[in-house]
Amino acid sequence: MQQINPADVASAVYKDLLSIRNKAPLVHNITNFVVMQSTANALLALGASPIMAHAEEELSDIINIAQSLVVNIGTLDTVWINAMHKAMQLAALRKIPIILDPVGAGATKLRTKTALQLIQQVSPTVIRGNASEIASLLAVGSTKGVDSVFSSEQSVDVAARLVTAYDCVVVISGATDICLSANAKLSIKNGSALMTRITGMGCTATAFIATFCAVNPDAFVAATHAMIVNGIVGEIAASKANGPGSFQSIFYDVLYNLTEKDLLEKIDIE
Amino acid sequence: MQQINPADVASAVYKDLLSIRNKAPLVHNITNFVVMQSTANALLALGASPIMAHAEEELSDIINIAQSLVVNIGTLDTVWINAMHKAMQLAALRKIPIILDPVGAGATKLRTKTALQLIQQVSPTVIRGNASEIASLLAVGSTKGVDSVFSSEQSVDVAARLVTAYDCVVVISGATDICLSANAKLSIKNGSALMTRITGMGCTATAFIATFCAVNPDAFVAATHAMIVNGIVGEIAASKANGPGSFQSIFYDVLYNLTEKDLLEKIDIE
Amino acid sequence: MQQINPADVASAVYKDLLSIRNKAPLVHNITNFVVMQSTANALLALGASPIMAHAEEELSDIINIAQSLVVNIGTLDTVWINAMHKAMQLAALRKIPIILDPVGAGATKLRTKTALQLIQQVSPTVIRGNASEIASLLAVGSTKGVDSVFSSEQSVDVAARLVTAYDCVVVISGATDICLSANAKLSIKNGSALMTRITGMGCTATAFIATFCAVNPDAFVAATHAMIVNGIVGEIAASKANGPGSFQSIFYDVLYNLTEKDLLEKIDIE
Repeated sequence: MQQINPADVASAVYKDLLSIRNKAPLVHNITNFVVMQSTANALLALGASPIMAHAEEELSDIINIAQSLVVNIGTLDTVWINAMHKAMQLAALRKIPIILDPVGAGATKLRTKTALQLIQQVSPTVIRGNASEIASLLAVGSTKGVDSVFSSEQSVDVAARLVTAYDCVVVISGATDICLSANAKLSIKNGSALMTRITGMGCTATAFIATFCAVNPDAFVAATHAMIVNGIVGEIAASKANGPGSFQSIFYDVLYNLTEKDLLEKIDIE
Repeated sequence: MQQINPADVASAVYKDLLSIRNKAPLVHNITNFVVMQSTANALLALGASPIMAHAEEELSDIINIAQSLVVNIGTLDTVWINAMHKAMQLAALRKIPIILDPVGAGATKLRTKTALQLIQQVSPTVIRGNASEIASLLAVGSTKGVDSVFSSEQSVDVAARLVTAYDCVVVISGATDICLSANAKLSIKNGSALMTRITGMGCTATAFIATFCAVNPDAFVAATHAMIVNGIVGEIAASKANGPGSFQSIFYDVLYNLTEKDLLEKIDIE
Repeated sequence: MQQINPADVASAVYKDLLSIRNKAPLVHNITNFVVMQSTANALLALGASPIMAHAEEELSDIINIAQSLVVNIGTLDTVWINAMHKAMQLAALRKIPIILDPVGAGATKLRTKTALQLIQQVSPTVIRGNASEIASLLAVGSTKGVDSVFSSEQSVDVAARLVTAYDCVVVISGATDICLSANAKLSIKNGSALMTRITGMGCTATAFIATFCAVNPDAFVAATHAMIVNGIVGEIAASKANGPGSFQSIFYDVLYNLTEKDLLEKIDIE
């Protein structure tokens, strides 16, 4: 992707979006209590079929019919950690994409340790987090807190080390989203500050990545397409919203009605 | 209900709706994590008093003050399965209506088995699901998957067998909702495809049935009234919405303001 | 606060609001499944940084970086009760404000007993509930049910006894909100009946109190400021809403955009 033509990328994003709308891939989410509803609604508006399930007894049946797996550590406890390990093992056996969202890694030792143990057991296809969450996965035992701020260059360096360490795609969300694989990099400037004023937009982005990975076998390209859709929908919704409440409703409406023209007009990548 | 007069039915629905708004029946929900908030909001907009509780230690106290019970298996685990069994036993002793939503039955063995064990222990007053969920309750051990499609005739046949097997009212949701008891049948054509693009509308319908059963002792009639309200509100909301996000907000507004005139104008049953 | 000047109070409320918007205090919520998302969204719209976490292994890390703690007993079970006890002990050691919401106390023995055990172990900074919930904390062993109605005078008497018993600020929500400490009392008439038609507005008020306590060391004043913001935002949102669905979206928008002028124009206290 050294020579990026935004129009070509927008068309490729739209092709994947149509594929999602046609195939309605089943995305299995083991996610946190706060965002289950908003994640399900975002996936439905995108065109996917979300399923939330965490009982160990049914993970095998779910993974057998799912096209991708989201593991999100936002509200952990022992029951859920065990389910995450088992689901990732089953997904690896079935070779479906695994997307990890290390929510709050760095803020507590439990979250950092859990994220690391999950990654070390099974390499995720994609890891998405903010810069401090991603950085914490390289610094075992040291907590950074939730408010750590990294420069764009530092973020890329951190992501690059994680890509190498675990052979996966890494997405760092922020004012500019950075997508990195072993041999490609894309920065996405779309989005809106209003996206940080409702809960779960990061979790939604992670679930979008899982959905695009379900229809596009190139995980790096799929991750970039997901983040472009997320950023553009957020940007359009923010331009129509009076605040975070109306923003959330409009986000689903814009996503549901997203056209290739919207993508072509708004895409802002490099 | 062989000679159905839609206007008479609409008036009867409205009478029950007024009764709900006046009495605010307490509806006890043991439901899934994804839809707890949207179910509570739907019941409040309808005029009911929802309570969500699953600790075994308090089930007896809750059931003693509740007018009906919803059991929804959307996000199972052992703690919750035990609570569902205990709550249904207590509700049966107190003779309050029990409404079962077998979410995902057929998709995993755990869900099919759990739904069957619950039904075999205590016959629910009403079971509501989509066609493949309902069908799975007749075919122990064989999983159908979540995408099975049944013709309208097949759905009625499946529902009829379940009605006979467990002496309960059965509601199959779909483009046309089918309500069936041992000696009555009603088809409801109201609704909108947009209802499938937000999570939990089926769970909401189940909770509506529980609410109407709390004010109308005829479970079949109560179930039809609930599904008519659900379908008409969805239809009106969809006509005003730009997509699934605005649809959800408008659904609650329309429900809260629903008039007899709305019911009379929109009702589409046979 | 014997001589109350509403304009002075409105300005003091606004000063705290700006402080919240500037500092984005981290508020740790151990709350119920129904309202996790709406509480997080309300805190984000207010300007706070919400975190939801209940695993005992990470409570210490979370409390160490949090500026206040919310404990809400809306959907109890053993795992969560243990987490609540531990979190309150840790918060007391770190001397951060603890706000308790005894949801449903009085309706079940488990809830009444749990609320009392929590309070007797560690005195909360503020307790907020409706009149029957608050009253149940004085009447061990007798359940009042969820629909008990108290006169305004009875509510004040009940609150006064709780203030004395546990040396804390007590807020009783209702058509008029009553805030009481050992030496001060304020009644807040702002609000709207529509606030009772969506789930979790009481839980939101509790989380607002925790946020204001994070920036204002006077717990009584902080609690009154939180309830004034809650009431005024609800009142403005209700005036623009078509029903409970649009009310919820508009609530977040109004809160996010709340100005000193709004507070000055609407404040209705005595």
